[in-house]
Amino acid sequence: MTKYLHDIPLPEAKSRLEVALKAAGKMGVLGVEEIPLDEHALGRVLAKPVWARLSSPHYHASAMDGYAIRSETTVSATLANPVDLLIGSQAGYLDTGDPLPAWSDCVIPIENIEPVMETAASSGEPMHLIAIRIRAAVTPWSHVRTMGEDIVVTQLVLPTGQILRPVDLGAIAASGHACITVARKPRVAIIPTGTELVPVGQPVQVGNIIEYNSIALAAQVMGWGAEATRFPIIVDNFELICQNVSKTAQDHDLILLNAGSSAGSEDFSARVVEKLGELLVHGVAVRPGHPVILGMIGEKPDQIPIIGVPGYPVSAILTGEIFVEPLLACWLGRSPHAPLTIKAKLTRKVTSPAGDDDYMRLAVGRVGEHVLAAPLSRGAGVITSLVRADGITVLPRGTQGMPAGSEVSVNLYRHPDEIEKTIFVIGSHDITIDILAQHLAVKNRRLVSANVGSMGGLVALSRGECHMAGSHLLDPESGEYNIKYVQQIMADLPTKIIVLVGRIQGLMIAKGNPKQIYYLEDLTRNEVSYLNRQSGAGTRVLLDYHLRLSGISSDSIKGYHNEEYTHLAIAAAIASGRADCGLGIEAAAQALGLDFIPLYQERYDLVIPQSYYESPLLEPLFDILHDRDFQNTVASLPGYKIEQMGKVII
Amino acid sequence: MTKYLHDIPLPEAKSRLEVALKAAGKMGVLGVEEIPLDEHALGRVLAKPVWARLSSPHYHASAMDGYAIRSETTVSATLANPVDLLIGSQAGYLDTGDPLPAWSDCVIPIENIEPVMETAASSGEPMHLIAIRIRAAVTPWSHVRTMGEDIVVTQLVLPTGQILRPVDLGAIAASGHACITVARKPRVAIIPTGTELVPVGQPVQVGNIIEYNSIALAAQVMGWGAEATRFPIIVDNFELICQNVSKTAQDHDLILLNAGSSAGSEDFSARVVEKLGELLVHGVAVRPGHPVILGMIGEKPDQIPIIGVPGYPVSAILTGEIFVEPLLACWLGRSPHAPLTIKAKLTRKVTSPAGDDDYMRLAVGRVGEHVLAAPLSRGAGVITSLVRADGITVLPRGTQGMPAGSEVSVNLYRHPDEIEKTIFVIGSHDITIDILAQHLAVKNRRLVSANVGSMGGLVALSRGECHMAGSHLLDPESGEYNIKYVQQIMADLPTKIIVLVGRIQGLMIAKGNPKQIYYLEDLTRNEVSYLNRQSGAGTRVLLDYHLRLSGISSDSIKGYHNEEYTHLAIAAAIASGRADCGLGIEAAAQALGLDFIPLYQERYDLVIPQSYYESPLLEPLFDILHDRDFQNTVASLPGYKIEQMGKVII
Repeated sequence: MTKYLHDIPLPEAKSRLEVALKAAGKMGVLGVEEIPLDEHALGRVLAKPVWARLSSPHYHASAMDGYAIRSETTVSATLANPVDLLIGSQAGYLDTGDPLPAWSDCVIPIENIEPVMETAASSGEPMHLIAIRIRAAVTPWSHVRTMGEDIVVTQLVLPTGQILRPVDLGAIAASGHACITVARKPRVAIIPTGTELVPVGQPVQVGNIIEYNSIALAAQVMGWGAEATRFPIIVDNFELICQNVSKTAQDHDLILLNAGSSAGSEDFSARVVEKLGELLVHGVAVRPGHPVILGMIGEKPDQIPIIGVPGYPVSAILTGEIFVEPLLACWLGRSPHAPLTIKAKLTRKVTSPAGDDDYMRLAVGRVGEHVLAAPLSRGAGVITSLVRADGITVLPRGTQGMPAGSEVSVNLYRHPDEIEKTIFVIGSHDITIDILAQHLAVKNRRLVSANVGSMGGLVALSRGECHMAGSHLLDPESGEYNIKYVQQIMADLPTKIIVLVGRIQGLMIAKGNPKQIYYLEDLTRNEVSYLNRQSGAGTRVLLDYHLRLSGISSDSIKGYHNEEYTHLAIAAAIASGRADCGLGIEAAAQALGLDFIPLYQERYDLVIPQSYYESPLLEPLFDILHDRDFQNTVASLPGYKIEQMGKVII
Repeated sequence: MTKYLHDIPLPEAKSRLEVALKAAGKMGVLGVEEIPLDEHALGRVLAKPVWARLSSPHYHASAMDGYAIRSETTVSATLANPVDLLIGSQAGYLDTGDPLPAWSDCVIPIENIEPVMETAASSGEPMHLIAIRIRAAVTPWSHVRTMGEDIVVTQLVLPTGQILRPVDLGAIAASGHACITVARKPRVAIIPTGTELVPVGQPVQVGNIIEYNSIALAAQVMGWGAEATRFPIIVDNFELICQNVSKTAQDHDLILLNAGSSAGSEDFSARVVEKLGELLVHGVAVRPGHPVILGMIGEKPDQIPIIGVPGYPVSAILTGEIFVEPLLACWLGRSPHAPLTIKAKLTRKVTSPAGDDDYMRLAVGRVGEHVLAAPLSRGAGVITSLVRADGITVLPRGTQGMPAGSEVSVNLYRHPDEIEKTIFVIGSHDITIDILAQHLAVKNRRLVSANVGSMGGLVALSRGECHMAGSHLLDPESGEYNIKYVQQIMADLPTKIIVLVGRIQGLMIAKGNPKQIYYLEDLTRNEVSYLNRQSGAGTRVLLDYHLRLSGISSDSIKGYHNEEYTHLAIAAAIASGRADCGLGIEAAAQALGLDFIPLYQERYDLVIPQSYYESPLLEPLFDILHDRDFQNTVASLPGYKIEQMGKVII
């Protein structure tokens, strides 16, 4: 089954495809078309240069509202000795843009003349304008837009390869064109395959996967200036896939065959390509996304390229960026996209497979003096890691990792200004943080959160790795929250503690409580499996505190050493039957349809260094903590109390 | 006629509009709509947050092709003492993505097992797989994507205001949505007015202006995420304009009424707004673009805003950027566009009207250590200045100008990488430079040229303001070109001189030579008017050289002191009758349909400092000089010789 898949370095993969495309005569603009010059030409790519057919202006035009005159008639005009020029023979009114009469060589603006009126013989009342009075000489060609001032016929207006902007459309029209020659849009077919796939909007059963890669790929292709056609899902059937691909190849320039690109028992893509043409590459040394297939199908010389796109969503989208975008750029005759880059320091050590170019997703934000890059999930199936990513860095082949604090060059997915508007919060997870993010988005701030538990958050804060930490660490001696830990960990750094919310922790259990769990003591029963939070999490501290109070040994709890990082992850595990119970908040239990045994009331605070507390960056946060709408939303969550929200503890 | 127009500061103008919009309940998202989740949602703006309806994965899924097993059955497995697990009861094959059976808690990848085959009783041949052999313990949940690994039901997937990217569409689908709620697209009507206007594609007469502002405005509006409708041109008729605007207001959210916004005799826009509603602003202290009109029309509370857009194309496009984009951003619930900025040094002194915010267009490029900004034409009618602009800087009200070398903050129109790919050439103008620009564009370089004459180019080069200069300066003593001037002006800086082209200079005259001009001596005739190049231009040096040889005084030539900056500008002036003749090249004469009297053969060189000569930036230039295609294009121009093209003189 692994007879094909064999990773080769990315440059070699690209070069094999290029050689094949060259042989097929497809390493350049695929074709051109003439389109009318209107707003729908926006974003198209010029396939021929535009040379001016007409000058602009195409005649001498008045640049002002005023009078056409001859400059030589004004030579003697001074303040004391004005010159009167007769309407008709010596002066003619022009609106801006009107052509200069042949007898005239300049324009005097209307605000610079004095009217000379004919008076009625009877009454002496002014009747109509007979002349204009001028009290200064006018130089030749003043207030005239001379022919060709903007564009002279035959000059280059725009070069081949220009991606047309609104202003370009104007300039092309001004230079006398009504049509333009642009690269035709490449036609890209996207074919999803997989018996387990169901289309968006249809009910899903266990084992079903919602087919959305084709939507993301089609949107990528459209955004890159090509036409995308999504085809219906094909089940895993070799012959059926061959038939469909073969038919689609007849009227498309590129086929993206999604999934089946690996080497499993139902991965047919490589064999399909081999049957219909030539398999160039099966496997590229990039992570995520290594089981990429590159090939050419159809009869020579009319072969078209096909890309077997891996099934994991992150792999699929990166395959688009790495292979599809540059190919479309070549076919459109434009430069490939170049991301903006920024230097940033890694917040933690990362490891990397030495054999692969490793595309690592990063959250990026400025904290104090430094731009920091926090590595996100590396999973190829974790699409939210790409959604949350502010950028990506490539750990090149031959690298086995990088220590914390290393400087990396990040290819940005966002405008650099957004990086400056980012609030980094690291620490304990609470649903209120998500709601806060939503409210901050409206106020031009981006909240980026990493869930590492309360203690982890405070340590990150003390290292200058975030703007604030979410924490609910109980001090067993005083019964107070957070203060002692903050004083210890933040040492001399002046730090504020602000109440976010009060909440109830308790045991999350399966619906109907089949194992009859009511008290901490039940955790020690042999048939009960527990799922714990990681050490350093406030919930773990709370559990340990109460275990000690109750004299229960952690060794007596089955699953005490199995850990998850969020309330929701614990709840999800219980809902799926992976464990019987876990300590957490009621909102998480309710979200997953679990039952809940309330046990302890606790306080969840935001810990913020004084310098950020006073910064404009965080200002909208405090407005939101006092916003009635936000408070009501939080109060409506089960077990949440907002009485102290926004209160400054220290 | 000037009863309305009175410029007010930009912030006040914006605030008057905001107050009126607030009163009309239009300072936020105009409306929402539910649309299907597919690739056409790309670029739409979320009007509601997306909370997950489904976890992803929504079941425990195998992360590999392999066998579902129970981890506890593998605890004792070692290299020496493997464990065999029976297919069916202890191990079940799974493809990637298949659901984990309820009895299993981990997956072992297929490459980590050894098959155990049943052998045929008769032959001893392996028949089929009966068990898998494992030589290492497997930890619980390894190679399993646990339910909710990516998304846990109820979590925030994306906040309000998100501009949807391909990856966002995927994540929303993964979280169980088939529809999304987005801001409805604002409907913008664009109404061009003006008796002098003709639509693109129709023949133009003197006095006609091609109507293209509506195309540029519509393209802007579309690019900013709204719907644009262009209406037919309306002649300058107050009643007709009122009727059309009034009708259009019924089914649009915003009207852009183009031109007629000033205070001329046929400028009706302000009166139209006043008649149909409320005139808020007539005149904003910005240049170009000050005669902007802001108003609200229709009956309260259903008023809609109307913007009277000035007629000059640069003014119209800047009005779009300054007023329309932020308004559409507000209506779509997204952040307004923030341009990238870069610091650059002005190459020359600029003056500015103290009363206005002055939007100055700039060509920007890196020359050596410095990012330089060269001011482009300030004319509101010069649309090519916006096409060529790499960015814009605002000289704020109260500033009367800035000296050369001042640092300005440039709002970029281009990707910063393009700035790094820019070749600045300053100096004499030749048509070959335009053709070179076209060929360089294909090779990922941008040629930005400023025409200041040969001498001006060498001076700019010596000041480090460009990468190369185009020059054709004749040394009267030696008869050589450029060498002496380069040695004098570039002093100790090692500099190369490369031949671009040989060409013929001569007299450009009207078709049919009505004034019978054949020799330099004819320029002294009383009825002949000459148009000269500026001093420092190679063509001027050439003229002066031959005047001296022929013993002709420049004072005897009418128009000797009238100057233009390019061959094409001289030709355009002669074609329009502004002058009778000028010295220049045949190609320019031919472009404008002029006759040409060839007089002198000359050489046009590129002068390049050694350091740039060897730089990767300029490398493609030398390839082009030896490219047969380029050479043929140049050779086909009348009077051009390419024999020495690319030859290194010094």
